[in-house]
Amino acid sequence: MRGLTHRAVDLEARVPQGTASNYFPTRDALLTALGERIMERFAPDEAVLAELGRRPPSLDLLVDYLRYILQRTAGQPDLTRALLELRLEAVRRPGLARTLGRILRGGYRDDVAFHEAAGLPGGAFEIALLHYAMDGLLLDLLTVSIGAGLNPDQVVTALAHRLVGGRDQGDGTVRS
Amino acid sequence: MRGLTHRAVDLEARVPQGTASNYFPTRDALLTALGERIMERFAPDEAVLAELGRRPPSLDLLVDYLRYILQRTAGQPDLTRALLELRLEAVRRPGLARTLGRILRGGYRDDVAFHEAAGLPGGAFEIALLHYAMDGLLLDLLTVSIGAGLNPDQVVTALAHRLVGGRDQGDGTVRS
Repeated sequence: MRGLTHRAVDLEARVPQGTASNYFPTRDALLTALGERIMERFAPDEAVLAELGRRPPSLDLLVDYLRYILQRTAGQPDLTRALLELRLEAVRRPGLARTLGRILRGGYRDDVAFHEAAGLPGGAFEIALLHYAMDGLLLDLLTVSIGAGLNPDQVVTALAHRLVGGRDQGDGTVRS
Repeated sequence: MRGLTHRAVDLEARVPQGTASNYFPTRDALLTALGERIMERFAPDEAVLAELGRRPPSLDLLVDYLRYILQRTAGQPDLTRALLELRLEAVRRPGLARTLGRILRGGYRDDVAFHEAAGLPGGAFEIALLHYAMDGLLLDLLTVSIGAGLNPDQVVTALAHRLVGGRDQGDGTVRS
């Protein structure tokens, strides 16, 4: 966050000085553009989605979607860490909090819509639980770990089965 | 992270300039001390622990322990955010990664030992899952949210019931 200045972007992109400022006049605009670009680079490959989409909806299919999310996020550690840095920076920047909030809420709504359209088990509540758990797993994998020494794929499988797959959750919620 | 300098600590603590440098000679030492102090300030109240410890171990008791963790972490947002900042800063500081890693691994081991001694349901695997999910929930509550609009206590209850309480998890793991 310290090194990310308009000038540094110009230098890195080898464009004339003033270009980044021209496109993104404020620091909030620059950081918002970074958030949007990170989400673009997390976007799934259409061919992989098409192949997954041919399978009947099931808990196993959900596990494979989650593994694919893990592959894109943990596999691009700098992007994932940058998004965490942006979320923390937004605490001190109300402008960034507004724009990044729109991006993250849009991402969650899209996830819920995709999930429902695909006929996968679980609803908006389960997807929020999975979001939290995956974010915490990524924090553990990509920063300092609590050292449980688990296989991330096994964790993802357990999260899907336990957070979504149980029959009687006994926690006062009704699964959709 | 930008503003946290030895000089700033001296000023804030109203001690002679050079005092913080004397106790914590390097920046890594200063940040490590911060991590240790954060963990100290997260420590539970002995009286509350004693009261919880009088109840027979059960999933309901686990829910109440988790709610108490949520109360201490979400209730001290600056501490929780500072720990997240430290974990990210450690990616760029191998010295801090080592010391903070020791602190976090120690915390996890203590959690597992406490859990087992208390006879609560679930083992080391379940505690790791809970850790990840709680960290992600805190990230959502204390930085920019995905906007699921859930009641944190309901989330914690669902996490305990689903991650620990299910009978046949069907995910290839054996619950202790």
